[in-house]
Amino acid sequence: MSFLDLVKKRRSTRNFSSTPVDRGKLKRCLEAARLAPSACNGQPWRFIVVESVPLREILAERAFSGVHSMNAFAKKAPVLVAVVTLPTRSPAAFAGLLRRFSYPLIDIGIACEHFVLQATEEGLDTCWLGWFNERAVKKILNLKREERVHILLAVGCGSGAQSGEKKRKSLLEISEFR
Amino acid sequence: MSFLDLVKKRRSTRNFSSTPVDRGKLKRCLEAARLAPSACNGQPWRFIVVESVPLREILAERAFSGVHSMNAFAKKAPVLVAVVTLPTRSPAAFAGLLRRFSYPLIDIGIACEHFVLQATEEGLDTCWLGWFNERAVKKILNLKREERVHILLAVGCGSGAQSGEKKRKSLLEISEFR
Repeated sequence: MSFLDLVKKRRSTRNFSSTPVDRGKLKRCLEAARLAPSACNGQPWRFIVVESVPLREILAERAFSGVHSMNAFAKKAPVLVAVVTLPTRSPAAFAGLLRRFSYPLIDIGIACEHFVLQATEEGLDTCWLGWFNERAVKKILNLKREERVHILLAVGCGSGAQSGEKKRKSLLEISEFR
Repeated sequence: MSFLDLVKKRRSTRNFSSTPVDRGKLKRCLEAARLAPSACNGQPWRFIVVESVPLREILAERAFSGVHSMNAFAKKAPVLVAVVTLPTRSPAAFAGLLRRFSYPLIDIGIACEHFVLQATEEGLDTCWLGWFNERAVKKILNLKREERVHILLAVGCGSGAQSGEKKRKSLLEISEFR
């Protein structure tokens, strides 16, 4: 599959079936994420793959309830990946202060998309989740105060057909040659 | 090429030759970036592809001099892409305030990596650049006050062989199953 075809195949899935996910596939997704580039090669990430039933159910229940229930569909995903953003100690931390932005957020974007695109190649469905109860997630997973979970990834097999063009701005709107 | 092979093939190139870059290849890179997912589908990006000689030389000279000269190698790249991060007006802006982080930075990470991986598939070499004189870049490109350029991408053909394993933490170090 060409890279453009892979990119087109990836869709955010909000309709997961209960089909379990093969661990070999998950490991290749992690490998793709592991090889992602990052500022100063800081690799400010850790991936906690939650698949065991009691933990996943508690995590999903606490993460996606109340004001976060717009993502309640993710309670049905057979796998949730908590992407832990580590505090960075590389020169990128200093550069980030000077430039007033957080390089690790860009790094997390890259690494998670590697995970998601590998999942697509493996025939899995995914959904990026950026709206959930982070405090509850950190507590349940016993994370340190300075660690953050900006992103959760829902992984599984979609139970509905998805098709059609992606809704995006046109190439003319987002790019120019000078 | 499998996605994992593509990921392994991508290297940061710091040794560009003067070979010009085919515009059709650049357009496919932009198309891959255009199709990237983003928070609330906000697509907070614009790509200014700088390839014309006088503008590129001025841009590179001002971007990569003085305290930013560690990236002076990029002055030789035949193409520089200024990735403009647009101020977001989607619900992601509100969510970002509540969660205390900038969703557009994650989105920029995803979209730029789509660009870079498509470039790799096209046989091009790239380098992510996060350290440059942003104020000068914004002025030369006549950008708005509220727009930012967090990332520049250098694109071209590498003139040296690159090989060897990528230096990364091990899978055990960055992941666990629970």
